[in-house]
Formats: sequence, C-alpha cells, structure tokens
Amino acid sequence: MANKKEKLAVIGAGSWGTALALVLADNGHEVTLWTRNDLQKKEINRKHENSKYLPGISLPENIVASTSLEEALEEVGTVIVAVPTKAIREQMRAILKFQQKPLIFVHVSKGIEPDTLLRISEMLEEEVPNKILKDIVVLSGPSHAEEVSLRHPTTVTVSSKNMEAAEYVRDLFMNQNFRVYTNPDIVGVEIGGALKNIIALAAGVSDGLGFGDNAKAALITRGLAEISRLGTKIGANPLTFSGLAGVGDLIVTCTSVHSRNWRAGNMLGQGQNLEDVLQNMGMAVEGVRTTKAAYQLAQKYHCQMPITEMLYHVLFNNVDAKEAVERLMARLKKNEMEDLVDILSAQMEQH
Amino acid sequence: MANKKEKLAVIGAGSWGTALALVLADNGHEVTLWTRNDLQKKEINRKHENSKYLPGISLPENIVASTSLEEALEEVGTVIVAVPTKAIREQMRAILKFQQKPLIFVHVSKGIEPDTLLRISEMLEEEVPNKILKDIVVLSGPSHAEEVSLRHPTTVTVSSKNMEAAEYVRDLFMNQNFRVYTNPDIVGVEIGGALKNIIALAAGVSDGLGFGDNAKAALITRGLAEISRLGTKIGANPLTFSGLAGVGDLIVTCTSVHSRNWRAGNMLGQGQNLEDVLQNMGMAVEGVRTTKAAYQLAQKYHCQMPITEMLYHVLFNNVDAKEAVERLMARLKKNEMEDLVDILSAQMEQH
Repeated sequence: MANKKEKLAVIGAGSWGTALALVLADNGHEVTLWTRNDLQKKEINRKHENSKYLPGISLPENIVASTSLEEALEEVGTVIVAVPTKAIREQMRAILKFQQKPLIFVHVSKGIEPDTLLRISEMLEEEVPNKILKDIVVLSGPSHAEEVSLRHPTTVTVSSKNMEAAEYVRDLFMNQNFRVYTNPDIVGVEIGGALKNIIALAAGVSDGLGFGDNAKAALITRGLAEISRLGTKIGANPLTFSGLAGVGDLIVTCTSVHSRNWRAGNMLGQGQNLEDVLQNMGMAVEGVRTTKAAYQLAQKYHCQMPITEMLYHVLFNNVDAKEAVERLMARLKKNEMEDLVDILSAQMEQH
Repeated sequence: MANKKEKLAVIGAGSWGTALALVLADNGHEVTLWTRNDLQKKEINRKHENSKYLPGISLPENIVASTSLEEALEEVGTVIVAVPTKAIREQMRAILKFQQKPLIFVHVSKGIEPDTLLRISEMLEEEVPNKILKDIVVLSGPSHAEEVSLRHPTTVTVSSKNMEAAEYVRDLFMNQNFRVYTNPDIVGVEIGGALKNIIALAAGVSDGLGFGDNAKAALITRGLAEISRLGTKIGANPLTFSGLAGVGDLIVTCTSVHSRNWRAGNMLGQGQNLEDVLQNMGMAVEGVRTTKAAYQLAQKYHCQMPITEMLYHVLFNNVDAKEAVERLMARLKKNEMEDLVDILSAQMEQH
C-alpha cells in the first residue's frame, strides 16, 4: 500500500472505473468518481452503491461521486480515464476547457481507433497539449471488475514511456488483493489489451454456434499467434504477449461469463444481427470497433490475421458465421510450426 | 480422409481411447478396441456404446471390442496406446509376449514417469526392442473426448522423430471435424501435454478456494511461463508452447468442466484430502504423478517452477492450499519482464 494518501479522480463510473476507484479507496486515497449521470451520482453518495454496474457492492465512503469535471479534478495530479475508446477525445476536450496544471493520465480502456489506427496513449498525445500532459500510464491485464470489487486476487500490468510514472501508479493501486506489475513495453500492453477483444468476440461466436471447448481453445491459440504477429510488426516486444496483458487477459476474456465481448459474440453466433446485439448489451463492446481497426492495421502492415479477417466479414459484410468459423478451422497450415516460425523470426530481428 | 482403409488397434477403452477409435472408424478403418473388462467388451459389441466413459454416444459398427491383446493386434501395423502413464510399461510387456512384427506405436497419454523422469516415448523406447519398434508417434492437443465423440471441431498435433510416421498417423486421423497438424518437436509436444495437467490442478485448487477468473488467468499465464522454462531446458522448441500442444491444451484443461485434473484440484481447494479426491474421481488423474515428476525435473535442471513447487507441497506435504496460493500470487517479480526475459534468452541460445 502506498504510504502517501492522495486526492485522485476517476473519470467514468462504469464497472471498471468504479472497481478501480474502490481499489484506490481501499488504499486510503480520496477518490472523486466522475459520472455524467445525476441519479448515479446521488446513489453513490447517499447509498454508496453503483447498482447498475456493480450491484450489491458497498463502496467505501472515501469515494465521492460528482457530475462536475472541474470539481473532480480540483487539486488532483493524477486522473484515471475509464471511458470507452470512442469517448476519449471528447472527454479530453472537456477537461482541457478548464485544466491549467499538468496531469498524469492513467488510461484503463482497451481499444484502437478505427481509421486513424491510433492506440489510446497516442490519442491522448494528440489531444492533450504538452504543458498539461505530464505522463501517460496504461493499466491492463486479466481483471474483471466484478471480481476486483469482491477483493478476489487480481494481477495487472502498468506501462509508460516514463517508468517512474508507471512505478508511481503501481504504488497507488498495489495492495494485497490487487497486484500490479510494471512492463516497459507500452505498445505491447496496449495492443494485447485491445486485440484480445477480437478473439473474445470470435470465441463467443464459436460458443454461440454450439462448437465446444476444443474449437475455442484452437481459436484462442491461433488468436494469440495473430496478435503477436501484428504487435511485433508495430514495434511491441513479443514477450509481452506471453504475459498478463497478453495471454492472461486473452484467456480471461475468452472463457469467463463476465466478458461482454464474449457475450456479444455468443449472441452473434446464435444468429442475432450486430445492431440487435449492440442494443441488447447496453454497454460498449470495444471489440466491434477494434475489429475494424485491426483489420485496417493488418492491411497496412501486410500481416496475416485470419481470425480478425473472418470476424470483420461476419460483423460488417454479412458473411455467415458458421461458414466463416468452419473455413477458419480448416485453414491452419498442415505443419503448425511453419506459422509459428514467422513469429520467432520477428522476435529474432528485434532482440 | 485417408484413402487406404486399415486394420488398427486401440489399447484402452477409456474416454480418450474410445473417442479416437470413433474418429478412426469414421474414416472407414477397421478398429479393434482392447479392454480388460469383459462387460465393457460385451456392451460395445452388442449395444455399440461405452456407457461408463462416453455415455449416450453411439459407436460405429466398425469398432469391435476385444479382451484379447493378441486378437486385437492380429494383422495390425499401427497400435494406438491409450492407457494411463503408470500402466504403459506393463501394457508393453503384455504385448511383447506374443508380438513378432514391427509396429508403429501412437501414444496419446499425457504424463512423465516419476523417479526415472522419462517422457512416454522414452518409456516405450526402453520397453520395446528395436525389431518391434518401427516408430513412435505422439498425438496431443486441446481435445476433450466428449466433444470429439460429438464430432465438434477439434485440432490436435502429432509428432515423431520420423516425420514420415507422423504424417502417416496424421492421415489416419484427419477428417473434417478432427484436424491434425504435424510438429517435429516431440520433446515439446510431450512436455506441454504432460505439464499442463499440473497447472490445471492448480487452477482447480484456486477455483475450489473461491478465487475468481482473474486469479486463474494469472495462474495460467505464469504456468505457461514455467512450462516453457523447463521445456526449453530439456531441449524442446519454445515455439511449441505457443501452439496447440502448449497454450491450446493448457487453456482447455484449465477452463473446461470436462477436465478431470481441474475437477480433482477443485475438490482439493474445497478442503478434501488427496486420497479422498483420487477415490472420488475413479479415473486416473495424471497431474498428481506428473507434479511429482516435474518437481524432480525442476530440481535436476535447476529451473524455477513456483506453481509446480506450490502444488507439490500441497499434494504431498500437507501444506495448506489457501496459504500456498496466496503466497504464490504475491511472489511475481515486480517487473514481469525480468522473468519473461529468461525465457527469451533460452530461445535465443537454441535458434
């Protein structure tokens, strides 16, 4: 637990923002949790609960909700940004209307922006002028909010171009249940976190079609390979994909009932169309936008990503899911090592 | 599907032996399924069902059960050995009493022999004289027998010192639902298959203790790292652990309700002792013996294997499971890359 108690702001009171506010509050920090929803603010401040996103969890009293960004950021040096990827730019612009002092931005979302193909830290660099942008830290890893809020053991990775900032953020969050580790590879940590949502959608489709655990394990294995292949081309350290922000996060997202990307894929596999699925979820499904972005990245970097391509066509080109998954299963090379050797070659070039 | 129809023997009518017999029969081969149990033989031949191990599955009529090893191996050139690791030597000795002609041995079990520290292919090499031992092929990968028998899509790896033999066995099994890929790294394929059972036991313990998916994902991630670390020291190609026989099999065994190693770990985590658990299972739990063997291998090769060590002490030294898992979670290095870099170094030496 960090010794120094700080005043911190968490922007976004969804399940993950609220769970992280709870971790920080458990460590004794004063946390303002910003939400745009007045009813949610009142519930958190009066009943100490966020019943829509973390029902049944009693929030510590040192979490105070506010609908005023200016109030939330008053006297704050570090802000945790917990909004969906597509809301990041708008949120930054709202902050910059009044913010004068430099901030450490900790982003905890998992996505890539379609068309610009930017990672979230790159979007922040574009939006926030240098005098306000002290450092950017990403926090990622296998971490369902529901379990974090129950204080179940959880391990995550933090990364930054400035490792001192990453260590500072590690110390803010670290406690007995919530273990935080540093990794200097910010590209790999962001890519791993974003792209696993694509594989989770695909795994959900496979489950929704009634295929079993054997098929899903094959998809996850091939999915990890294609994430590593693209990530390494973009400049990530391939080892990151063997760690918590890579295979760890991939496993939890593809196999847990809590995963909203898996759930969305599962509905698609059962025959619902994309619009209905997104309507039913009522929460952001990052994997849908990320599939589009990764499809574009694969073209830009001339990188084979068969699962991403399959899912792209199912999501956006009305390709039949069953046919697509079956074609994918038959597509592995006869010698699986031929494929894996591509990845090792890329590793050897880098190190 | 292979064009040439063959007469084949499967030794062992547990769930996996029976499911593989079914795949071969689907491909048109004549399969004799050997069992030591006369009632099971009669049920398979009269009702075309193996109700103890694959209840509800109708077996093709070109599977014939026999309790005579000599009858099962008559005019057979390839035998599939589907018995638990601890029965392998005895089974080979029984075959050698009458077998005169060379055989291809396909082994489909997943273990390492304690004390000798031999892989199954090495045990076969010890037991079977050269004039009978034509080739050894291992078949491994993420493949629950129940799903294979339902013809759900499944992918596995075959490996051998003689890749022509591996390709021959691939062609025997390959069909639309059951996809078989070759990998020349027999050490890695055997080590990956055996050691994942240790991590599945540990994942079951974590679930039995009431920890969640976040904790389990961390265990699996660290488990894959320690399997790669030991495997690479023994001479495996580290890439194999990124493939179907590595991470693929690990995921399915740690996250599926079908996995008997996970189920055994789960009972341990709920407070049952090892003897009661093994009694309740009524089937071989390979992971228990493999934990002992891997613990010994870790000492022999001076290799850090914290999860294996933790489980060894829980299984054999009455160490409290909850305390052991909690200590393990706190043991990760503060920078996860320090640990992963060990693995990359080993890869670089090899290639």
